[in-house]
Amino acid sequence: MSNPIEFYFDFSSPYAYFAALRIDELVAGFGREVAWKPTLLGVIMKTTGNTPLAAQPVKSEYCAKDWERLGRFMEVPWKLPDPFPIATQAAARAFYWLDDRDPTGARLFAKSAFATYFGEGRDISAPETVADIAAGLGVDGDELLSALADDEVKQRLRDEVAAAMEAGVCGSPYFIVDGEPFWGSDRLWMIKRWLKSGGW
Amino acid sequence: MSNPIEFYFDFSSPYAYFAALRIDELVAGFGREVAWKPTLLGVIMKTTGNTPLAAQPVKSEYCAKDWERLGRFMEVPWKLPDPFPIATQAAARAFYWLDDRDPTGARLFAKSAFATYFGEGRDISAPETVADIAAGLGVDGDELLSALADDEVKQRLRDEVAAAMEAGVCGSPYFIVDGEPFWGSDRLWMIKRWLKSGGW
Repeated sequence: MSNPIEFYFDFSSPYAYFAALRIDELVAGFGREVAWKPTLLGVIMKTTGNTPLAAQPVKSEYCAKDWERLGRFMEVPWKLPDPFPIATQAAARAFYWLDDRDPTGARLFAKSAFATYFGEGRDISAPETVADIAAGLGVDGDELLSALADDEVKQRLRDEVAAAMEAGVCGSPYFIVDGEPFWGSDRLWMIKRWLKSGGW
Repeated sequence: MSNPIEFYFDFSSPYAYFAALRIDELVAGFGREVAWKPTLLGVIMKTTGNTPLAAQPVKSEYCAKDWERLGRFMEVPWKLPDPFPIATQAAARAFYWLDDRDPTGARLFAKSAFATYFGEGRDISAPETVADIAAGLGVDGDELLSALADDEVKQRLRDEVAAAMEAGVCGSPYFIVDGEPFWGSDRLWMIKRWLKSGGW
């Protein structure tokens, strides 16, 4: 993949879910591809000084309404999961482990994980659930389950989170296109404009 | 004005500036009007637990880029002012004082204040500057200047900020349409969709 659109996201981010439903198709129209890069928003927020949504009750209530409306206006499944948010280490580790073996399969796994959590509202924090989702795509669930406990696999995710912070990622979804950052599912129109005009 | 679109904003909010350039025209197409309601984001943020942008260096840097790009993509003037952000009590008090006398003039004043601060990059925090901007629209600058120091005018703004918080306003720009909240200049498409479909 040469010069891909970098798509940083946390599996527990509703706005990333909405962006994930659109980004591949959007950039394909310009002959470009997307490098999906799950990261851990909680770790990033500690560094950037942003306040987690859960600590902002007024904003939380607004966002719940906004997500429901986005699902309705975009005509896509939406269910605010309970619990929300969740730890997404297992899903993110699974993604990178799959990505090294089968990039197309890894992308399908990511879409399936998002659909399970935000489409059906099912908790995907447990390694067993993550392995089940992957097994539904033909992956050996037991092999994945033991990989999720592997130190090298854990370190890989730490490295990816560090690289995301190094790249300036401060939220989810966060895109980098030709070195230019775009933050939020509401910036897809700007990415389109950027690709259409060659950056102007 | 019956059942107006409520437009809450802080004169020091770049995203409100961009929204202010579009909102009147957008809703006029649906036979609706906008009630402009300047508020004080600093006071609101203390209550909602949000972190001011200035305390988030990574986000600040991203936003500066995003604003410049919005100006370019929307083909409107943009200049990141110095100082930024500023106290906007004077501009907000002037707005409500004018609004009681001449609502159309108050709206023109608000647009002129935004254009001065974000279009030209000129500090509008001083009462004298605010009076100058109003004088450019035919308002008696000295009369406005003494009004800005009036306790009743100050109380009016406090009441408006309290009413905004009561209405759930947690950012800028923040719109309420038929009781439904929309937060951000990037939600104008949803307001349009709402008006077009009658809320569905």
